[in-house]
Amino acid sequence: MMQLKELGEFGLIERIRNAAGRSDAIVGIGDDCAAFRVPSGTVPLVSTDMLLEEVHFRSAWSDYYSIGCKSVAVNVSDIAAMGGTPQAIFMGLAAPGEMSVEQLESLVRGVREESRYYGAELLGGDTCRSPSGLVLGITVQGYVPEQQIVTRSGARGGDIIWVSGSLGDSGLALKMLQQGQQPPEVLAMRHHRPRAQVALGRALAKRDLATAMIDISDGLLADLGHILHASEVGAEIDVRRLPLSSYMQHHLTRQPEDLHLALRGGEDYELLFCSAEERGAELRELSAQLEVPLTPIGEIRQTSGLGVVGANDLGSELKGEGYDHFVSS
Amino acid sequence: MMQLKELGEFGLIERIRNAAGRSDAIVGIGDDCAAFRVPSGTVPLVSTDMLLEEVHFRSAWSDYYSIGCKSVAVNVSDIAAMGGTPQAIFMGLAAPGEMSVEQLESLVRGVREESRYYGAELLGGDTCRSPSGLVLGITVQGYVPEQQIVTRSGARGGDIIWVSGSLGDSGLALKMLQQGQQPPEVLAMRHHRPRAQVALGRALAKRDLATAMIDISDGLLADLGHILHASEVGAEIDVRRLPLSSYMQHHLTRQPEDLHLALRGGEDYELLFCSAEERGAELRELSAQLEVPLTPIGEIRQTSGLGVVGANDLGSELKGEGYDHFVSS
Repeated sequence: MMQLKELGEFGLIERIRNAAGRSDAIVGIGDDCAAFRVPSGTVPLVSTDMLLEEVHFRSAWSDYYSIGCKSVAVNVSDIAAMGGTPQAIFMGLAAPGEMSVEQLESLVRGVREESRYYGAELLGGDTCRSPSGLVLGITVQGYVPEQQIVTRSGARGGDIIWVSGSLGDSGLALKMLQQGQQPPEVLAMRHHRPRAQVALGRALAKRDLATAMIDISDGLLADLGHILHASEVGAEIDVRRLPLSSYMQHHLTRQPEDLHLALRGGEDYELLFCSAEERGAELRELSAQLEVPLTPIGEIRQTSGLGVVGANDLGSELKGEGYDHFVSS
Repeated sequence: MMQLKELGEFGLIERIRNAAGRSDAIVGIGDDCAAFRVPSGTVPLVSTDMLLEEVHFRSAWSDYYSIGCKSVAVNVSDIAAMGGTPQAIFMGLAAPGEMSVEQLESLVRGVREESRYYGAELLGGDTCRSPSGLVLGITVQGYVPEQQIVTRSGARGGDIIWVSGSLGDSGLALKMLQQGQQPPEVLAMRHHRPRAQVALGRALAKRDLATAMIDISDGLLADLGHILHASEVGAEIDVRRLPLSSYMQHHLTRQPEDLHLALRGGEDYELLFCSAEERGAELRELSAQLEVPLTPIGEIRQTSGLGVVGANDLGSELKGEGYDHFVSS
């Protein structure tokens, strides 16, 4: 197997460009910048994420193709959380010289195919050699009509708090991996191959159904905390209403304390949003139409603070915290 | 001194946001994405760069403020090379937990102030903890009227090859640092604090003076090679015409073999461009107006290959290669 240090940086860029095929961009991979047209009547949305080996992923637990897919999905999820449509992906890549060209091509194929799944295109990047592990810096550009942007700051007292899909599966899969167990395929996919809720985010924005929105990357409590902080409101949620998969429900019958995985496990990449109470019927209709479960889990309060009810087992232990990258406790 | 692991990720983002001040963006730091308006009649330009400690910079040789400045300048240089105007900066940051909050704030201040120097704004990013050294993933977004984009692929036989500023100073400073010497302040600044040639790139694009353009990051020969490859042409350059600073000229009287620093030292961040022969007078006028030296160093040929003349001392040793991140030879 050829190693990266044999192929070289420019050989690698050439391979990536050749594999990219036809592009809609004005200027694609291989010049100083990419140039592309943003649909008229829209404004650009940009988000960037750093992903480090041994922090965000482990090649022992996941194949490189999936690592590439996930690195795009977690970024596109931020576009979804603003109500936007993803358009272009840029990939910064610092790779160990010992990585094989095949591994890297799998990674890039994952990046490209996941991008295409969302209608976006890999349009540029930068490669260099990493003295330690693999580092990915992914930037996604999307667009949205300016009046449809959904921020974190519009939640109002009385709004209902909704969440898409189910919570905690990714955290449960990670826990099993950390304990040396192989999670069931469906759970493993929730962790290794999350899918961003782009169609849902877009539909909520277009119909003005969400007053505030965020994607759940740090964990439900932490991400709800970001909305409360930005909107200067409080909330009460009922953990008995949290949407849980059958795997999680089964797991909780044996280990009820793992409910915290649904509250602060993170990496669910579901959408958490607030909506005026009278829009509930429209949301249920949208849920059926998109075939995405939407569940009301609580309510926004005018007074600050986050109350969590229905968790007798956990009680006062709960705090509005998710995963924080610098605090090691 | 407070360490990052005490402040935490959200504390850090809060500090960065609070220091950012007023923003022209629709949505700035602290939401899922940034949102901003692109001037009408223009298209977005995007470039991304990864910068790793011990590969692209060493904190022993440079202060964190300068590392922040340089990380922006080298990216903005890519916008300049397309003839564009920089608008927004996004910073992915993986920092060791032992890094102090003061060091990180210096870095971010450098990023912000260098961005402002070019009229751009730090609009978002991502932070996480790095298990090894500091990693920066910088993405810059700019804009340009579509018909003014200057790519690498428009060079035609007979075009004159021009370069801005002087070459090799950054490479000479790096060589001195590697040998444990302290370079003179002016040379050190060329290495640690390069400035992107935005006004020049913009003027060349606006007046349609450049048929092809690139910024010199990998070294003159390598970057000229990129233009030749993309334009499917060849070239001949005369090393006796290379613009050299008085430091470099003086250095070469003692070590003539170091001429290679001007040819493939890299990190000059000058603009290398091709222009029809009859536009020479306009270029000299522009050079005087912008107070940026512009020097003709050779000519584009219809037949492929890069000829280098005037270097008797170096002769056949020269090849069209610059710095390649994976090839370790």
